[in-house]
Amino acid sequence: CWWLSAALWGAGAGICDAERTNTAGCGGGRSRYRPDWASLDARPLPAWYDRAKVGVFVHWGVFSVPAWGSEWFWWHWQGQHDAACERFVRRRFPPGTSYAEFAPHFTAYDFQPRQWAQLFQRAGARYVVLTTKHHEGFTNWGSPVSWNWNSVDTGPHRDLVGELGEALRESNLRYGLYYSLMEWFNPLYLADKQNDFKTQSFVLKKMMPELYDLVLKYKPDLIWSDGDWEAPDCYWNSTSFLAWLYNDSPVKDTVVVNDRWGRGCSCHHGGFYNCADKYRPGSLPEHKWEMCSSLDSHSWGYRSNMNLAEVMDEMSMIEELVQTVSLGGNYLLNVGPTKEGVIVPIFQERLLALGRWLDTNGEAIYETQPWRVQMENTTDTVWYTSKGPVVFAIFLLWPRDSVLCLSSPIPSPGTQVTLLGFAGTLQWQQHPGKGMLITLPYMLPSPLPPQSGWAVKLEGVE
Amino acid sequence: CWWLSAALWGAGAGICDAERTNTAGCGGGRSRYRPDWASLDARPLPAWYDRAKVGVFVHWGVFSVPAWGSEWFWWHWQGQHDAACERFVRRRFPPGTSYAEFAPHFTAYDFQPRQWAQLFQRAGARYVVLTTKHHEGFTNWGSPVSWNWNSVDTGPHRDLVGELGEALRESNLRYGLYYSLMEWFNPLYLADKQNDFKTQSFVLKKMMPELYDLVLKYKPDLIWSDGDWEAPDCYWNSTSFLAWLYNDSPVKDTVVVNDRWGRGCSCHHGGFYNCADKYRPGSLPEHKWEMCSSLDSHSWGYRSNMNLAEVMDEMSMIEELVQTVSLGGNYLLNVGPTKEGVIVPIFQERLLALGRWLDTNGEAIYETQPWRVQMENTTDTVWYTSKGPVVFAIFLLWPRDSVLCLSSPIPSPGTQVTLLGFAGTLQWQQHPGKGMLITLPYMLPSPLPPQSGWAVKLEGVE
Amino acid sequence: CWWLSAALWGAGAGICDAERTNTAGCGGGRSRYRPDWASLDARPLPAWYDRAKVGVFVHWGVFSVPAWGSEWFWWHWQGQHDAACERFVRRRFPPGTSYAEFAPHFTAYDFQPRQWAQLFQRAGARYVVLTTKHHEGFTNWGSPVSWNWNSVDTGPHRDLVGELGEALRESNLRYGLYYSLMEWFNPLYLADKQNDFKTQSFVLKKMMPELYDLVLKYKPDLIWSDGDWEAPDCYWNSTSFLAWLYNDSPVKDTVVVNDRWGRGCSCHHGGFYNCADKYRPGSLPEHKWEMCSSLDSHSWGYRSNMNLAEVMDEMSMIEELVQTVSLGGNYLLNVGPTKEGVIVPIFQERLLALGRWLDTNGEAIYETQPWRVQMENTTDTVWYTSKGPVVFAIFLLWPRDSVLCLSSPIPSPGTQVTLLGFAGTLQWQQHPGKGMLITLPYMLPSPLPPQSGWAVKLEGVE
Amino acid sequence: CWWLSAALWGAGAGICDAERTNTAGCGGGRSRYRPDWASLDARPLPAWYDRAKVGVFVHWGVFSVPAWGSEWFWWHWQGQHDAACERFVRRRFPPGTSYAEFAPHFTAYDFQPRQWAQLFQRAGARYVVLTTKHHEGFTNWGSPVSWNWNSVDTGPHRDLVGELGEALRESNLRYGLYYSLMEWFNPLYLADKQNDFKTQSFVLKKMMPELYDLVLKYKPDLIWSDGDWEAPDCYWNSTSFLAWLYNDSPVKDTVVVNDRWGRGCSCHHGGFYNCADKYRPGSLPEHKWEMCSSLDSHSWGYRSNMNLAEVMDEMSMIEELVQTVSLGGNYLLNVGPTKEGVIVPIFQERLLALGRWLDTNGEAIYETQPWRVQMENTTDTVWYTSKGPVVFAIFLLWPRDSVLCLSSPIPSPGTQVTLLGFAGTLQWQQHPGKGMLITLPYMLPSPLPPQSGWAVKLEGVE
Repeated sequence: CWWLSAALWGAGAGICDAERTNTAGCGGGRSRYRPDWASLDARPLPAWYDRAKVGVFVHWGVFSVPAWGSEWFWWHWQGQHDAACERFVRRRFPPGTSYAEFAPHFTAYDFQPRQWAQLFQRAGARYVVLTTKHHEGFTNWGSPVSWNWNSVDTGPHRDLVGELGEALRESNLRYGLYYSLMEWFNPLYLADKQNDFKTQSFVLKKMMPELYDLVLKYKPDLIWSDGDWEAPDCYWNSTSFLAWLYNDSPVKDTVVVNDRWGRGCSCHHGGFYNCADKYRPGSLPEHKWEMCSSLDSHSWGYRSNMNLAEVMDEMSMIEELVQTVSLGGNYLLNVGPTKEGVIVPIFQERLLALGRWLDTNGEAIYETQPWRVQMENTTDTVWYTSKGPVVFAIFLLWPRDSVLCLSSPIPSPGTQVTLLGFAGTLQWQQHPGKGMLITLPYMLPSPLPPQSGWAVKLEGVE
Repeated sequence: CWWLSAALWGAGAGICDAERTNTAGCGGGRSRYRPDWASLDARPLPAWYDRAKVGVFVHWGVFSVPAWGSEWFWWHWQGQHDAACERFVRRRFPPGTSYAEFAPHFTAYDFQPRQWAQLFQRAGARYVVLTTKHHEGFTNWGSPVSWNWNSVDTGPHRDLVGELGEALRESNLRYGLYYSLMEWFNPLYLADKQNDFKTQSFVLKKMMPELYDLVLKYKPDLIWSDGDWEAPDCYWNSTSFLAWLYNDSPVKDTVVVNDRWGRGCSCHHGGFYNCADKYRPGSLPEHKWEMCSSLDSHSWGYRSNMNLAEVMDEMSMIEELVQTVSLGGNYLLNVGPTKEGVIVPIFQERLLALGRWLDTNGEAIYETQPWRVQMENTTDTVWYTSKGPVVFAIFLLWPRDSVLCLSSPIPSPGTQVTLLGFAGTLQWQQHPGKGMLITLPYMLPSPLPPQSGWAVKLEGVE
Repeated sequence: CWWLSAALWGAGAGICDAERTNTAGCGGGRSRYRPDWASLDARPLPAWYDRAKVGVFVHWGVFSVPAWGSEWFWWHWQGQHDAACERFVRRRFPPGTSYAEFAPHFTAYDFQPRQWAQLFQRAGARYVVLTTKHHEGFTNWGSPVSWNWNSVDTGPHRDLVGELGEALRESNLRYGLYYSLMEWFNPLYLADKQNDFKTQSFVLKKMMPELYDLVLKYKPDLIWSDGDWEAPDCYWNSTSFLAWLYNDSPVKDTVVVNDRWGRGCSCHHGGFYNCADKYRPGSLPEHKWEMCSSLDSHSWGYRSNMNLAEVMDEMSMIEELVQTVSLGGNYLLNVGPTKEGVIVPIFQERLLALGRWLDTNGEAIYETQPWRVQMENTTDTVWYTSKGPVVFAIFLLWPRDSVLCLSSPIPSPGTQVTLLGFAGTLQWQQHPGKGMLITLPYMLPSPLPPQSGWAVKLEGVE
Repeated sequence: CWWLSAALWGAGAGICDAERTNTAGCGGGRSRYRPDWASLDARPLPAWYDRAKVGVFVHWGVFSVPAWGSEWFWWHWQGQHDAACERFVRRRFPPGTSYAEFAPHFTAYDFQPRQWAQLFQRAGARYVVLTTKHHEGFTNWGSPVSWNWNSVDTGPHRDLVGELGEALRESNLRYGLYYSLMEWFNPLYLADKQNDFKTQSFVLKKMMPELYDLVLKYKPDLIWSDGDWEAPDCYWNSTSFLAWLYNDSPVKDTVVVNDRWGRGCSCHHGGFYNCADKYRPGSLPEHKWEMCSSLDSHSWGYRSNMNLAEVMDEMSMIEELVQTVSLGGNYLLNVGPTKEGVIVPIFQERLLALGRWLDTNGEAIYETQPWRVQMENTTDTVWYTSKGPVVFAIFLLWPRDSVLCLSSPIPSPGTQVTLLGFAGTLQWQQHPGKGMLITLPYMLPSPLPPQSGWAVKLEGVE
């Protein structure tokens, strides 16, 4: 099982459009990774990532200016000529407005990176992933190959990637960089695409220089690649880059990457797997994965007319987290700041609710592994995690009669049960069939803030 | 000449603070109100208002464009030359920017009055008060005497007052119009002020025409006057206006007004009393009053950089409501929409939480009267309201041992106790000293949303 | 004849829509003018005006921002819904743009009043008339009754009227203030108009206060009224204002006014007569008049897309001047500065050409009177002016054979002829029929551009 | 690698200033030019260019938006931090404004290419040179390697280069494309510069692709290179490009280029020589050259606050033309259109004056060659041109006594003299010393403005 021994690699390494002659280095101390998936996929995932469990995702860019529809605004508007988008622009902007003209309004006036870092820390996140460049191509740092289309030359006139990075490190948070390989309207990319990706003008002149620049400048703990799906990994030079990243880059020992490195790679190659956005596997995956989700259920980028009904509620957020961790995943929860750099109160509220929940229940989340059973189906849903011999059963609804029924754990006389956040031990008894029945404590109906899930700590069960 | 002809009304018209002993026309059927406080104050408050208890206040105007500091932005910036305000403008706007230049950005693009009305209804409000004109002087309807400085000529190019009114009526909500008598920078007002308010150019040319226009056009249920404090009521022609409003206007039978009609009038004359903003009386006032409060604790108008810590939480909101109603007041809770007309999600969340609370507990709020005791001090705070023979005791914290101790009610054998939202009756016993002890039901710790206060229904007590 | 004796007044004083009981003051030294035309029209025109002959007219306002079509832009756009105007706005400005939103762009950044004054002086102007407020209602000074719609509150944030006035006085130029009585879209005016001008709300609250303010603040030498045509003078309170102006104002001894003071007044009452714009009488008028013309033949306000073919050429400009002065008029030549306050080079070029022409020929223009004959028709057109016994014959085309033929002057032996700008006297002889033949000097030829007018000085003719 | 492979061309490719003795392939039909100056310089200049004599230069770009200082605005502002520039921006634009934010205001709303072409034709121009890209890097066509920084993606949203080209061809005018090799702030260029131009990233990714694109798309008659001075021609790949242009491009037979192809090349290599801007040689150069001049003496790009005193007058313009042609040069006269695409009236006036002068005197300009003597110094300046046996003497001031004295022509009995634009022949006589005296005709005088130059046609002189 993947999280037990990385030695199993090699086996399942899929072939992603590329012929390979030598398989991964056999014999002797492996010194270097080769630019092929067999070799790259064999790299053990740096340990910090699996232990972190909870991250915050931040989508911020020029799309935060129209702040309408979603961060795919440009594409919907001028790639698909969506009627509603066109009407929106016609109604609100001067005739002849182009997307590039939004950039000066991306001001970041209120961007205070230390406040962000503090908020993310209070939310219980252990890492933060920022969009350094989305499909629009605008870079949130002074990319040397994105003249006039980056956050230093226009708009904020600040190095957003760098400033956030510094603040996160001060707060001991790991730093991930989201980077879209492709750019919808970059003429170099479009030309390569026209050539069926048999030319690599865009990759050589734009994408690769930027990826290297990001790594060398900001020494990220994580690279969250995206926008890979239209072309194979050999077009993107993905394996070369990863080989360099793993062998020679300043972050070679700690960096983690995801799986979006070319058509067909997602869910098959790379570091951890994102598979699809908001991916929820039905059973325990064999490979370390991450579930990314967004507080605004309609968009990753900020929308100025977002309605409360479209915002995830606390219950859903905690449910997603618990289910994800139980199934071996990390949970990356997204917020979209405004063009001025404000994380609006409703997002603060949700993040802080998550943090409060983790203050009590984090022991059942951070640094855990999946247990032999993931979910209890017989009663109200219960999710399991484990940490060494300790098993955590997390339930999202309080049982009607305050008796929690667990079929899977096999108790022994020494079994001890506690409720996280509650002093003292709980009484339990053998279940008539199998498993155990736990008597929950009498608790005060909590006025404010709400409780939304509780965790029972079982010691000495099998 | 007004100050001469005012003499015709006898009784010292123009003297605001004077107590008067002779109340309005005794003997015979009162036919008309006279333009003096003695007569006007004698008018019975139309019944709908006291029964409504809960209203939503909406501050919306050009101040929603800078959306910074508070709705007093203009004054702080150019009246007081506040350094932070000046820096804000210098940093974010072109040199030479004047406040008037914000108006075109007050677009109301996303203003959907029916959605607002629905939200306010779900919040449990029975009336809504909109700023038709704040101290900035910008009118949210096409005032005929506010050329180019109203919402039809510039900005929204819509009749905001009218559109909201129609939507509210469809939802059976009462409609109140906030109107600031004074305008910080109106040159007519400034000239009158320079003359120690011995001239009335502003009142005759601007204020009075607008008040009459509002009443005739929108037939409000409530007029929420403000900005009166610099000048006496005789300057504002307040009593004449109110006499017309009560005698001859199309809303003479239903309209309610507040108490801000001239220096010294607040808390002494008019309809219901607002006294100061966020006024919280220590004991039961003798006169119907209203407590206005704001979800953003720092501002009535929208602030784009509002922080969650500055937003009132549910507990505070419900506490304010309960305390206010118990003391005989109405509760008017404010939100500030964005310049586009969006009521942001955090405000939606709070309003809907209020509505959910009222769904369960509204019976203890709407159409109640203060009881003979307002508050129980002996234990955790409990507030009383009543409706005929029925008494409601509302407590904000669940008692530790689930036994609610009430000193004031004197029970009888037939006394019956229920908990709103909970089926069945509750057991109780005579308190050893005086009052009664009520055994609360066992309740599920509620996952989501939170409970935040409960009401016990006592029947047959004295 | 009017310029000879003002004693003839009274006679032709028309009745302009108003009944009058007392006619102009009989008997005794007249001390004061009465507010009726009989009396007002009898006032002798202060002498400076007729002697000045040449003025510059300046149209500057918010219309200088769209700078398209003409200074009537607002009216064509939103009064008449002219399709081309609507297209212009739709194509170039954001949806929902209103005319008021142009004002912030009226910056006057490059307005240097001393440079203007110097230019006008070099152009030979003796007075300058500035639009203090055009039909749009925007005032170029801080009018106390035009809140947020004046050049101090918005746009330039400067007192344009005051600044230009100071600069003109330093350059010894007389200062005239153009003022439009009406305002297309002022709601007070529109209401009065709706009432068939039986109410005077606009006049009392807006127009009169401004006229008095202008006179008291800027002490103009000339008031150039306009926009009077929709309502009678009794609506405008014109005669009252003029009586005050002539009797009690600080400029009572020097001020000159024109004739646009109410429907039917133009060309019949007031000071000098403008009659229609660009009025060119066929023969010598009986009353002092002024011809106003514009260098941009299509507009009085600046147009950013003005074409050279639409700009008056030197020849036309000098022809208009000569013809006007010969017929007893003053010549008021208009330029429209840009929104930044630049008088563009083509206008500088024309004004300086006029100035150069006047440097040579001003003796035949300034302080002259019409002669007994105005124009010689027999040959190429020749226009006469006179100064005491001296007669000036001004010809616009050089006669083919360099012999100038004048039918009207009757020479005597002592007759002496000189050419302005040319040293020495010219030879002449009695014309076979009547008049005289003058031999012009040999002059250097010049191919570019064509000749533009010369003046011959005849002394001792009759 | 380019600097290696360049060695294949032998003869010291990469050495810019070297004189070369062996000219391009002698003997046998020359088939192709080699990429070295010896070969390229040997190409005969296509005949149309020398015959054209008169061209119009057009500077148009994003610099037309600030329209202040000169087209070097960006450099003065952010390259040199010129205090006046910084003040200008600070005063007129929002804080944080970057140069790129001017581009959306470069609207070209009023750009009517056919009207331009007609104007240039009436001005007597035979070719027109447009800035396709100035040092700012903004391209006036949809360059595929200048994403979001070209006239199709932003601002005009039009192909300015293409539209003007079509209109010029309809009017039978030759079309020249100005192109700046370098770009002040292009990060690729700056990186190469940092590397002492030992890398060519900018040339390979930006400059060369654009030059080829321009030639292939627009088939120009002339390429007017600029911005070459910081780097040697070997950096720019100039000789390779020119070899392709002369050998293989679609315009190989007609295209003309100038001399700005690398440090030290100007005035030494290329097609015709521009040498410095506004270059005026003291004596007849040995190589075909062009004098470029600008109607606005302070700037090539439009300036909104241009003063008349800074605009060249007709006299200077004609003097420059005559002197230039007499010395064998072409005259390229510049105008800067506004950001909307208007050529302002003062420029129209000068261009049309030039055209009128050429209507009369073009015979002495177009298709002429320098005569054996260029200038007559003995008297008022006279400049000579010739066409076969015919000699033209052009004088700029009319001689006092109308006798034109020419020392250089040696007359014969058959010598015939005429004045262009004047019917009939002129009388002349042998000069007492040498040369001839010509009696000019009597012409109609003209006071305004001063004379501007006449041409005498001498036939049969030597």
